[in-house]
Amino acid sequence: MVFFMHTGFAFLEIGLTREKNTINILFKNIFIITGGLLLYYAFGFNLMYPGFEEGDMGILKFAGFGIAAPEGGMTAAYADGGYTWWTDFLFQGMFAATAATIVSGAVAERIKIGSFMIFTLIYLGLAYPIVGAWKWGGGFLESWGFYDFAGSTLVHSVGGWAALVAITLLGARIGKFGKDGESKAIPGHNIPLATAGVLVLWLGWFGFNGGSVLSADPALTSLVLVTTSLAAASGGFGAIILSTVLYKNMDLTMFLNGILGGLVGITAGADLMSPNEAVVIGFLAGIVVVLGVALVDRLKLDDPVGAVSVHLFCGIWGTLAVGLFGDKAGSGQFLTQLYGVLIIGAFCIIISGILLGGLKATLGLRVSKEEELEGLDIHEHGMDAYPDFRMNQH
Amino acid sequence: MVFFMHTGFAFLEIGLTREKNTINILFKNIFIITGGLLLYYAFGFNLMYPGFEEGDMGILKFAGFGIAAPEGGMTAAYADGGYTWWTDFLFQGMFAATAATIVSGAVAERIKIGSFMIFTLIYLGLAYPIVGAWKWGGGFLESWGFYDFAGSTLVHSVGGWAALVAITLLGARIGKFGKDGESKAIPGHNIPLATAGVLVLWLGWFGFNGGSVLSADPALTSLVLVTTSLAAASGGFGAIILSTVLYKNMDLTMFLNGILGGLVGITAGADLMSPNEAVVIGFLAGIVVVLGVALVDRLKLDDPVGAVSVHLFCGIWGTLAVGLFGDKAGSGQFLTQLYGVLIIGAFCIIISGILLGGLKATLGLRVSKEEELEGLDIHEHGMDAYPDFRMNQH
Amino acid sequence: MVFFMHTGFAFLEIGLTREKNTINILFKNIFIITGGLLLYYAFGFNLMYPGFEEGDMGILKFAGFGIAAPEGGMTAAYADGGYTWWTDFLFQGMFAATAATIVSGAVAERIKIGSFMIFTLIYLGLAYPIVGAWKWGGGFLESWGFYDFAGSTLVHSVGGWAALVAITLLGARIGKFGKDGESKAIPGHNIPLATAGVLVLWLGWFGFNGGSVLSADPALTSLVLVTTSLAAASGGFGAIILSTVLYKNMDLTMFLNGILGGLVGITAGADLMSPNEAVVIGFLAGIVVVLGVALVDRLKLDDPVGAVSVHLFCGIWGTLAVGLFGDKAGSGQFLTQLYGVLIIGAFCIIISGILLGGLKATLGLRVSKEEELEGLDIHEHGMDAYPDFRMNQH
Repeated sequence: MVFFMHTGFAFLEIGLTREKNTINILFKNIFIITGGLLLYYAFGFNLMYPGFEEGDMGILKFAGFGIAAPEGGMTAAYADGGYTWWTDFLFQGMFAATAATIVSGAVAERIKIGSFMIFTLIYLGLAYPIVGAWKWGGGFLESWGFYDFAGSTLVHSVGGWAALVAITLLGARIGKFGKDGESKAIPGHNIPLATAGVLVLWLGWFGFNGGSVLSADPALTSLVLVTTSLAAASGGFGAIILSTVLYKNMDLTMFLNGILGGLVGITAGADLMSPNEAVVIGFLAGIVVVLGVALVDRLKLDDPVGAVSVHLFCGIWGTLAVGLFGDKAGSGQFLTQLYGVLIIGAFCIIISGILLGGLKATLGLRVSKEEELEGLDIHEHGMDAYPDFRMNQH
Repeated sequence: MVFFMHTGFAFLEIGLTREKNTINILFKNIFIITGGLLLYYAFGFNLMYPGFEEGDMGILKFAGFGIAAPEGGMTAAYADGGYTWWTDFLFQGMFAATAATIVSGAVAERIKIGSFMIFTLIYLGLAYPIVGAWKWGGGFLESWGFYDFAGSTLVHSVGGWAALVAITLLGARIGKFGKDGESKAIPGHNIPLATAGVLVLWLGWFGFNGGSVLSADPALTSLVLVTTSLAAASGGFGAIILSTVLYKNMDLTMFLNGILGGLVGITAGADLMSPNEAVVIGFLAGIVVVLGVALVDRLKLDDPVGAVSVHLFCGIWGTLAVGLFGDKAGSGQFLTQLYGVLIIGAFCIIISGILLGGLKATLGLRVSKEEELEGLDIHEHGMDAYPDFRMNQH
Repeated sequence: MVFFMHTGFAFLEIGLTREKNTINILFKNIFIITGGLLLYYAFGFNLMYPGFEEGDMGILKFAGFGIAAPEGGMTAAYADGGYTWWTDFLFQGMFAATAATIVSGAVAERIKIGSFMIFTLIYLGLAYPIVGAWKWGGGFLESWGFYDFAGSTLVHSVGGWAALVAITLLGARIGKFGKDGESKAIPGHNIPLATAGVLVLWLGWFGFNGGSVLSADPALTSLVLVTTSLAAASGGFGAIILSTVLYKNMDLTMFLNGILGGLVGITAGADLMSPNEAVVIGFLAGIVVVLGVALVDRLKLDDPVGAVSVHLFCGIWGTLAVGLFGDKAGSGQFLTQLYGVLIIGAFCIIISGILLGGLKATLGLRVSKEEELEGLDIHEHGMDAYPDFRMNQH
């Protein structure tokens, strides 16, 4: 089901962008899934879980090609009986690809595909597992008591920080901001697909959060499914209520992004919260999404799918919420969560800044003006996403 | 998987309606899922399952906000070990939303979204759980021996009756009936999406019916999956054969609605029937769909997606079929099934008549003629579902 | 999940073909699923698994209508405890339908639907279970030690051989080859749908291969999931790398077909291979896809979706790979695999040649030129897949 999330991300991204760049976005998504899986197989997994030794940060343990299953890893006794080492690899590989997909949405419609591929491979193969090792691999954040159940910070913010850096370096799409700096909406070309994407993502999140229970405890698993669903629903409500109050129209895309925000927000503490707390966290995540989109716009940044607002801002909110609500609430925990957010944020900004800055100075990040106007599909892929409709139109 | 059904319903509904109302329909569907879940969480679930006390009708047990899990509810020992109280809540909440979605399809392209939202919340929060309590909550229908395995009546007919009342009060879409009263086809705008919707629904039905086994008995679960699949397949065949005989073209939408009719028809007795009986019940449900669509048309009612025919008529057929086929067949059971259908039908007609009649007299049910002609998307949401294609066309 | 593959196939097929034939393709797919299931229920299953008697080829055991579950078949003790007889029936029925769907893609946009339906019913009801009985039903290929874990040959090649025969007898679509015989691309009308189809198929393959483990051994199941995923990913890479080198553009459809080729290629030995071997087998399958598409083109055959290349060529490759890699590698095994491929190939070519040749001589295989040019949707079904867009365009 976590695999299926990538179908959801692909639907959402192409739905919220323009028809002329559809093939390009699909290509990037397929590349992330296949490339991410192979790369993670090649060395990311061992880097992130370096022999399961406590306190080991893993940076130096480049185990080389191939995964050596630990003793007992091939049986269900591993990981409390819920699944085996191999299943865990697939699950984690899909998590890793999620982080890259978040970046893909934010930079859509204007990034050079070659530069994007290089950045993705390095960031996914290096930065993601290093951060993961700090917590899930038993590193120093784990020792401090930092808590992130299924990746509000370790997956969503890791992608979100890179997305923020990338759109800052890339600049806005042509036509996004007018002469006086006013923001203009560039509507997505296929809203039904975007809606389907969110529903598929919601379903996939059941796997993402449910699977993160890492054990066959049915009570905990079902609590996680309930908190996940309620946060999604109330995230949607939070966003659509605020959006309708502010902008006077019932904006379906805000409803959808609110649902995603609720899902991201509950991810850090889905196993710690009561259903009532999940409703509150989700609702506030929906508010964060609407305000976040307005903030990104105010900063003259261009994020076609709202990835920064949904994944970074709600990821931060969800991580901090672990210190405010639920079983671990307390000022000490809140500060630990805050430190974790800041350290990981700084690390991600630095790494993605170096990588993307380097690419910008060498290969370049952005396609030519002509290519952007005519569409990346024709220029990079020589294809059209819906040629029959286009042929009919000429 | 039951959750995934809502993706199927959304696909089906927008596929079978016009492009200009797509956003509106998606908005309603997203509203039903999120609003229904929150509402059901707030009080519907306790209303429907009032402490599991036999014979208690539950109407007076407004337990107030929040769900109190019963003793032992958090462990898999609850409900014969198959799942926990929380999982049951999610499952039932999705069932409830299904009833509302059925109405959504029938009233598409002309209902005021505000009135629809109010109706849905009250009907879903009140009527659905009350009816559910009569049977699944251990009420008087349970005492009588009324049988409805997974909701041919309790879910599908409850939605179907309200759909029938709603389209009667709403009137037909502009252009549906000509000056001489002849019915005109208004083709759906995206048949591939509608087809995908039916396949997704079929898949979801495996969860709907399979999950209703409520226990981990693999023999019964797999029988239910087989009867469900065979009824779906033969429902499709029944409908396409009759439709091709009557109308001389191989109408894909009839094929699709026949499959759905077969699924609805087997739902009441999926655990009681042999595979051969499932084939017969499904086939006849496919016949019911085609005749039902013709009947609705003859009555000058306008049901864009065929919801009344599929969910109400086949729901009734499936419920009665429990008295005609399978382990419980017999004239006594048939009469009990019939009484159940009639009592629930009367209740649903009265409640939805009062609610919708009241809304019609106050807020109004129907959008303005101008809005209907230009499309609800632009008027209510300020958005277009596929703006790139439209832009190219002007 | 195997059921869900048919949604994937439907998406892929319509996405890679033209808008004017969309309804026709969907109709064929829905027909295959429903008809295949009923037919397989009626007699295919007993034909393929004739009482589980070793060495019995099954051809003469027309058990007549209805399935009689064997002693103990209704309990999970059957088939090593993983599932029951009924579940097995559903699983196998979906496998059977897969073989027919492969043919459907290759003959798209020009075959007479009546002839296609007749061919499918006979081939699916007769040829597929006979071949299956040779191996999975305990026939002579089983005795020889032929190995095909989940159907590289028994499902994919069985469909692929018929597809090859069919496109040879049918001829190319009008406009596919120019006056000088040069091949022209006829682009598919909805690439996002095709992409979604491949992702759905990948997901479904987890069920296809994972479910073929036939037991609840979690270690083996998870190994199979890993080999399946890695082969898919490296199949995509193999195809896109070769395609980009040869043709200088990043062709998304080659990427997609490479993924499918990798999946088909690993299917014969998904439980025998190490992850590293899966990567190699998948990568070479991706190469096979690109070269296969070029070969089909060179032969002046017209396969709109690349079905022959993906299912037949990669099916053969995957079957032979069992003799080259993994636990069973060896020259004896390789020869056994080769004999199996050849015998089944000869059988399938003969049967499908007789059936399709007979249909061509009687009912005819191909629609009229006028119908092909105007589209099968209007002529056969009186419907349009996306009427709102078409209406706007005229």
